[in-house]
Amino acid sequence: MSNNHAFDQAIALTPRSDNLYQGKTSEAFQNMVGPFGGTTAATLLQAVLQHPQRLGDPVSLTVNFAGPVGDGEFEVEATPLRTNRSTQHWLLLQKQNGEVVTSATAFFAIRRDTLTEQQLSAPPAPAPASLQRMDISIRNWFKQYDFRFVHGIPLMGRAEGQPLDTESLLWVRDAVERPLDFTSLTAMGDVFAPRIFLLRKSFTPSGTVSMTHYFHATSDELEKVGSGFLLGRAQASRLHNNYADQVAHLWSEDGLLLLTSTQSVYFKE
Amino acid sequence: MSNNHAFDQAIALTPRSDNLYQGKTSEAFQNMVGPFGGTTAATLLQAVLQHPQRLGDPVSLTVNFAGPVGDGEFEVEATPLRTNRSTQHWLLLQKQNGEVVTSATAFFAIRRDTLTEQQLSAPPAPAPASLQRMDISIRNWFKQYDFRFVHGIPLMGRAEGQPLDTESLLWVRDAVERPLDFTSLTAMGDVFAPRIFLLRKSFTPSGTVSMTHYFHATSDELEKVGSGFLLGRAQASRLHNNYADQVAHLWSEDGLLLLTSTQSVYFKE
Repeated sequence: MSNNHAFDQAIALTPRSDNLYQGKTSEAFQNMVGPFGGTTAATLLQAVLQHPQRLGDPVSLTVNFAGPVGDGEFEVEATPLRTNRSTQHWLLLQKQNGEVVTSATAFFAIRRDTLTEQQLSAPPAPAPASLQRMDISIRNWFKQYDFRFVHGIPLMGRAEGQPLDTESLLWVRDAVERPLDFTSLTAMGDVFAPRIFLLRKSFTPSGTVSMTHYFHATSDELEKVGSGFLLGRAQASRLHNNYADQVAHLWSEDGLLLLTSTQSVYFKE
Repeated sequence: MSNNHAFDQAIALTPRSDNLYQGKTSEAFQNMVGPFGGTTAATLLQAVLQHPQRLGDPVSLTVNFAGPVGDGEFEVEATPLRTNRSTQHWLLLQKQNGEVVTSATAFFAIRRDTLTEQQLSAPPAPAPASLQRMDISIRNWFKQYDFRFVHGIPLMGRAEGQPLDTESLLWVRDAVERPLDFTSLTAMGDVFAPRIFLLRKSFTPSGTVSMTHYFHATSDELEKVGSGFLLGRAQASRLHNNYADQVAHLWSEDGLLLLTSTQSVYFKE
């Protein structure tokens, strides 16, 4: 791992005592209010990954964004709630000034070879090299990624007479090359903007309140992806009374499904 | 609410002290090992619903099944982690003999009228009255529901030459009439069997490790559904090395999307 990479710096944690880590928000991954949620999620996962009692690899991760993360230092409490023979359940709390800003639960397991079957194929998409790299600077963290949209660019509106459609399809990879691992996959699972921005041309306050990742990818599969592009698709099922869901998937360039992710997203109006 | 209903008895909690409740597993909702996960999830949600500090209605719920729940009594610790002006984050721990058997996080909010848009339509399905009620007795909790499968019956195998397909489409309602509420919707979001049973004719040990519900339905919408049937669809995106995901949706009979749910499910081989 190249610890000089902006992403590694953003998710770096220093052990303070048993189950307690300290981190610091990253200028490079700033969002409009506080840090990019994907970095926060990756930082919480990182606490488990570097915990001396950690068993196996991540299978699921749920992150609840409880309040704004202020610029500067924070603490992460990582508590193994239950350890079985080959599985482990974690509770993760990110705190600032003694107050919970993010809570999370994670499930880790030692995985063995079994039947393997992919039901959801990657949607057809032009090769990333044939698409324009997105030139966007409204959010700092955006610059950390190389985005190539196939369709569904947020806040662009839609052509007259086109149906409402919340689907985005895009290629993404780290702007500065970095081999894919569980932390960067976690962050890339959160690169999709709130789906309300696909229905509206003008901005409305919005943000993820809860996000759940299921890691299909095993370490060997991540290694094969390396620093290649991932194909991501996100779409809402319903938006109603301040909250929308969003179901997303990330595939490797050769069509392997690496991550299933869902979010509950607040939108103001 | 009819407190004599088997479901209400299964999820009943007695307050013991601040943030602490006591419950008891239900014979009626037994699964092969321990209680039906849907009842466990509903019981944890119930702890928040009856908590004196509760704010608003459920928007998201994640439940991690950490270990088997033994027959008999259990405790539920319900802790408000963070309360904002119109939102609230909860941590829920179900314990037996001091050990965590289930952990959960829940997000509640006061919801206001906004843009409302449903992107995912209910799939076409014959009316429930035109379909045979499922006659099945392998699991006790199954008998508590009136199931009418359109397709995708677990462990039935598939016709020669048919492609592998993990999708189930079915109608479901409480076998004994009961008006839908957030707790029963929570349980019905877990009625779908592990998707591995759609690929296999023979049983393999399997079970949910983590489940996330997003509640689209607001109280007024639940009230309109009453004790009507819900249409449920579940499908896996990928099954690999002991774990599969499963994305599910529940619609009212008139096509309103009430719940988006995802699971990470263990399967042995």
